[in-house]
Formats: sequence, structure tokens, C-alpha cells
Amino acid sequence: MSSSIGEFRRYRERMNERILSSDNLGIKRFFALDTRAYEKGALTTKTKEMLGLVASMVLRCNDCITYHVIRCVQEGVTDDEFFEALNIALIVGGSISVPHIRRAIEILDQCREMQKKHQAIKL
Amino acid sequence: MSSSIGEFRRYRERMNERILSSDNLGIKRFFALDTRAYEKGALTTKTKEMLGLVASMVLRCNDCITYHVIRCVQEGVTDDEFFEALNIALIVGGSISVPHIRRAIEILDQCREMQKKHQAIKL
Amino acid sequence: MSSSIGEFRRYRERMNERILSSDNLGIKRFFALDTRAYEKGALTTKTKEMLGLVASMVLRCNDCITYHVIRCVQEGVTDDEFFEALNIALIVGGSISVPHIRRAIEILDQCREMQKKHQAIKL
Amino acid sequence: MSSSIGEFRRYRERMNERILSSDNLGIKRFFALDTRAYEKGALTTKTKEMLGLVASMVLRCNDCITYHVIRCVQEGVTDDEFFEALNIALIVGGSISVPHIRRAIEILDQCREMQKKHQAIKL
Amino acid sequence: MSSSIGEFRRYRERMNERILSSDNLGIKRFFALDTRAYEKGALTTKTKEMLGLVASMVLRCNDCITYHVIRCVQEGVTDDEFFEALNIALIVGGSISVPHIRRAIEILDQCREMQKKHQAIKL
Amino acid sequence: MSSSIGEFRRYRERMNERILSSDNLGIKRFFALDTRAYEKGALTTKTKEMLGLVASMVLRCNDCITYHVIRCVQEGVTDDEFFEALNIALIVGGSISVPHIRRAIEILDQCREMQKKHQAIKL
Repeated sequence: MSSSIGEFRRYRERMNERILSSDNLGIKRFFALDTRAYEKGALTTKTKEMLGLVASMVLRCNDCITYHVIRCVQEGVTDDEFFEALNIALIVGGSISVPHIRRAIEILDQCREMQKKHQAIKL
Repeated sequence: MSSSIGEFRRYRERMNERILSSDNLGIKRFFALDTRAYEKGALTTKTKEMLGLVASMVLRCNDCITYHVIRCVQEGVTDDEFFEALNIALIVGGSISVPHIRRAIEILDQCREMQKKHQAIKL
Repeated sequence: MSSSIGEFRRYRERMNERILSSDNLGIKRFFALDTRAYEKGALTTKTKEMLGLVASMVLRCNDCITYHVIRCVQEGVTDDEFFEALNIALIVGGSISVPHIRRAIEILDQCREMQKKHQAIKL
Repeated sequence: MSSSIGEFRRYRERMNERILSSDNLGIKRFFALDTRAYEKGALTTKTKEMLGLVASMVLRCNDCITYHVIRCVQEGVTDDEFFEALNIALIVGGSISVPHIRRAIEILDQCREMQKKHQAIKL
Repeated sequence: MSSSIGEFRRYRERMNERILSSDNLGIKRFFALDTRAYEKGALTTKTKEMLGLVASMVLRCNDCITYHVIRCVQEGVTDDEFFEALNIALIVGGSISVPHIRRAIEILDQCREMQKKHQAIKL
Repeated sequence: MSSSIGEFRRYRERMNERILSSDNLGIKRFFALDTRAYEKGALTTKTKEMLGLVASMVLRCNDCITYHVIRCVQEGVTDDEFFEALNIALIVGGSISVPHIRRAIEILDQCREMQKKHQAIKL
């Protein structure tokens, strides 16, 4: 029912390398556009990552939620901010998103545990 | 590809406690509203749980399906009633919901097995 | 922002005839299966139509909502039963389904108006 | 293909009144929770409305988009901020959300037009 | 319940121009990637447009369906091929996609009418 | 984060047998219609399986993706064709489908490995 942050990172890294080693230009460019969308502009990266988190919540994708929770932690989102963002996702997306709230909080707690131990939270 | 009812219950219980221990009033109230929506009113709880099951099927959330199958069993939904409700979910939601039909029946069979052994089906 | 029940019926009827006049057996059989799924079995047609309504609500399809509201009215669903079913759809599906709650109630009110005038509610 | 802000507001207002005049407590409480979720807390209302907008974009609900664009304008979201938020919605949600980008910009342009004429943008 | 091909084209053209006149590079590049994805490669444009049509059907976006039906007609998709592709969309996506089957056939019929009159089918 | 093709096949086979052993005619007929939709007609089975794959990608169902990747391999879809189809799914469905692209490629690579060893790829 849950998988560790490390396992997620290794799978994601390995498969992304595999996908980007293909000859398909379209997919490569999409991945580049995806990265760039969260770079600081008129909005901060922190705000953008919260937008990405809420979008992932209401579309109910656990891997995407894991990714954006980690990125939000890296950008300094506080627990209160997390819960307020998740509350909006819950109101917009309904009880069908409750299992994903559980997932998000589980990953958040793992990140906070790592921070207490001064471990780097990498992606 | 499957996880036991017990594993689901423990994870759900642990994470719900964690979520409700936060200070976010909105999320707590949502959880309360969610519970109350299935209480007997003009419609029976049995009918309401079938509504919840079909909604979970067409939105394709395995944890929600697990929860509502168990609740339906507790409310006395028969096998024929289950299959008719799942048939409606299949017609409305299409073949993309077939893996979730498998999941629902797997959980149903686990519940029936427990009932044969006179085991309590708790949530 | 709204369209009358009559307009919906005529469009639906005309296009269904057009679709069923094609040579595609698969689509014709799907339409037949769809009709049969709501026939009385272990569950009443009334319960099945409410299942169809809630499924249409959480999947957010206005034409499907219009159809199932009318069918529910024909099967004798009361206002209290409607609101309880819609409440479950709202809890499961979230605020993104609010515009569809509006639609459902608008159609329900049109049906009640027709019933007061002893007009037949046809599909 | 488009409807004016005024028409949206009148329909929304009329139907919300109708819905809240019913006896269903669950729905009334959901509406109250929905309103409260966007109130200032650890996150500003402006940030929360952008979260609501992006959630509405990826779930592809035009009425919800219309509502949140108007609320974002009221909270002072700039054009650059709008386009960056919409870009994230587009990347996460894909080309299927392009028609909703069109809708969002159409409403935004109507709001800016009203602001130029010093008209109040009400909901 | 329906809108003409011409109305769709004019709205789409006007709003795309508006969107691409903004300074947001991300959105512009996404639009370019989107166009390129359907260009002939290992798969023909005809096959790719059918993939786009079925994707639009199961995601239930009328504007996207309108666009891909027109593109499929331009690429020479026959009526039998259309109905077989729509049948797959119907089986995968379920009865919730029936209103979109109606829409697809309505647009197809408008295109065939234009072809009979030797009118150009533009986008 | 991944499960082998063999595990998928055994679970699918076992549960399909269980489901088809029930008395529910509607579900049995749906399964039959589902199979028939991919049979050669005006479109080849290869094209139809690619339509099924893209539909499964944008609806984000890993089991359905696993099934259609295997069927596409059986029908002779080349790697270039796969990546072009996945690129369309990615453009239409957005970054939320990236985890499913990973899944599709993982299954594809397992199939290619089996082909190198002259192992039958069964379903």
C-alpha cells in the first residue's frame, strides 16, 4: 500500500533514462517543457509546485503526488500550507481523492523524518 | 496485484488517525460529512453504499472499491445484487473499469470466505 | 446554460436513430446491453436508475444526468431521495460536480412542473 | 461556444438559492466547507484561488473555470501569473485541456475589459 | 446541443491567435509539439488522427472530437473505419461516452454533406 | 512499482474465469463485445490495438496498458510506432500520464526481452 521514497526515485530515474534514450523527439521535448513549467517566473517555484501537487491530487496519480510532495518539501512548504492545499484538493476532488490524501501525508511524514535526521531529500 | 482486507484496514486506520490529528478543520469536517452521507435517511444505508460502490467503480479507485464492497457486505447486499450493480458500473464506465470489477469480486470473495468461517468483517 | 427536456429528447432520438442505422454491430449491441442493464432483476429499476444517476454525476456528463433524472422521476424517486443521492455524488465527486448538481435540480424542477400540469414525461 | 459572465452569475445564483432552499443538510454543509476552503490561512486567498483554477482546468469544468478566473481577477492575479498557472494546467492535463485554456482566457479578457471600464466584477 | 463546424473553426482560430500572442513561451511550445505529434512518421497521419479521435472520445471533450473528426475526414478515413474506431472508444469508455458518439457522428455527417457539395473542409 | 507479465496474466485469467462463472448475462455479453471490438474489420487488429493502447494511456489504467502493449507486440507494432503512439497519448493526456508511459515502456522492454529468447508472449 506504500512504497519508499528511495524506491520511487530509483524506478523513476531508471525509466526516465530509458525513455529519453529513445529517438522520439516529441517525448524528449515534452519532458523538457514539463521541467521548465515549474521554473521561477511571475510565480515562485514554491507556488508552482503546490499547483502541481493539487493538480496531481485531483487527477489522482500517486507517483505524481509523491514527486510533487517531495518538490514542495524541497521548496519549503510548511505543514499548515500542505494541509490547506490538500484541503482544496479534497473539496474540489471529493472523497474519491481521500486515498491520495493518505498517500500525500505518508510521503510528507517520510520527508519530515528524513529532515530530522538531516538526510538530503533527493529526486 | 491484490492486498488483503486486513492490510487495507490497518493502513486506512493509521493514516486516517494521522490526518485527523492535524489542525486542519476543513479536512476533519469533510471526513465527518463523508460519514454522514451514508447514514439512513429517505434512502437506506444499503442503497447508499451501493451508490458509493458504483461511484467508486466508474471513478476507478481500488481503495474506495474495497471500502464500499466491505460496507455493502455488512449491509447485506447479495451476490446477485452485487453483480447487477457492477454490471451498471461496467456499462457506464466501459472496459477501462474491468480491472476494478476484478478487484471488487476479489474483495467480495474474501468477505464471503470470512463469513463462512464466521469471522467478523470489520473496517 | 440550460436546454429544455424536449430539445434533449429530440436530439437524442434523432442521433440514436442515425447511429443505429449504421452497419456497426458492436455499437448496436452495446446500446442493447445498455438498455438491458437497467431492467428489473435482483435490484429494482428505481435503484438501478439511481445508480446510473450517481455514476453520471461523478463522471460529470450533463446529457447522461438529464436522461437519468427523467428516468428516476418516471420510476417514482422522491425529492428527498434525489437530494440524498446527489449528496453522495457531491461527497464522492467533490465541488467539481456542483455545476452538475445545478443541472440535475434544474431538470428535476422541470419534471415536477410537468407533473403538476399532468404532462407526460417522455424520453 | 461562450456565455457571458453575467449570464453565468445569474444562473449560478438562482440555482444555488434553489439548492440551499432544500432540506438536505449534507449539501448545505458541503457548500459552506467549499467557501471556507479558500479563506486566508497559511496560504493567501490569491494562492488558493490559483490552486482552485488549476484544479478546475485539469478536471476540465468550464463553469468552475469561469468562477475561479473571476475570483483570481478579484484577488489581483496578473496576466503573467495567469498564463504561468495555465501553462502548468496545460502541461499536467495535456492538449485535452486546450479548449478550457481558450475558455479561461476568454473570461479573463472579459474581466480585463470590465476593469478598463471601471465596472465591478461581481459573482 | 450542437454547433456548426464554421462556428467552431472561427472561435478556435480567434482564441488560438489570442493565446499565441501572449508572452508565455511554454504554452507556445506546447502548441507546436501538439501539431508535430500528428505529422507522418512511422505511423501515418491518418492513423495518428484516429488515435487522437479515440483519445478525445474516451476523455469526452466535444471540441477535441470535432477537431479530430474533421482531421480524420481530411485524411480519408471512411465511414466504416470511423464506426469501428468509435466502437472501440465506446467499449473502452462506456455509455458515458454515448453523447460524444452522437456528437462525432453529427460532425461526420456535416462533413460528408459538405463533401457532396464539393465544399472545402477547412480548419 | 512493477509486476511481471506472468503475474498479470495469471491474475487476469483467474479473475476473468471467476467473473464469467457468475450468472450475470450482462457482464458476460460485455466481455464478448469487448473481445469482438478488436477483431479485423475495416481497420486492422494492429491499428485497433493501438487505439486501445492510447485510450488506456489517457485514461491511465496500468492493467489495461499492460494488456494492450502485449497485444500490440503480438500484432507486430514496432518500437518507433510504439513511441509515436505513446507521444500522442502524452500530448493529449499530459504529464499526469508520464508514470503510465514508464509502465508501458517497462512492459514493452520485457516483451522484447522475451522475443530475443524466443519465448512465447501469451495472454
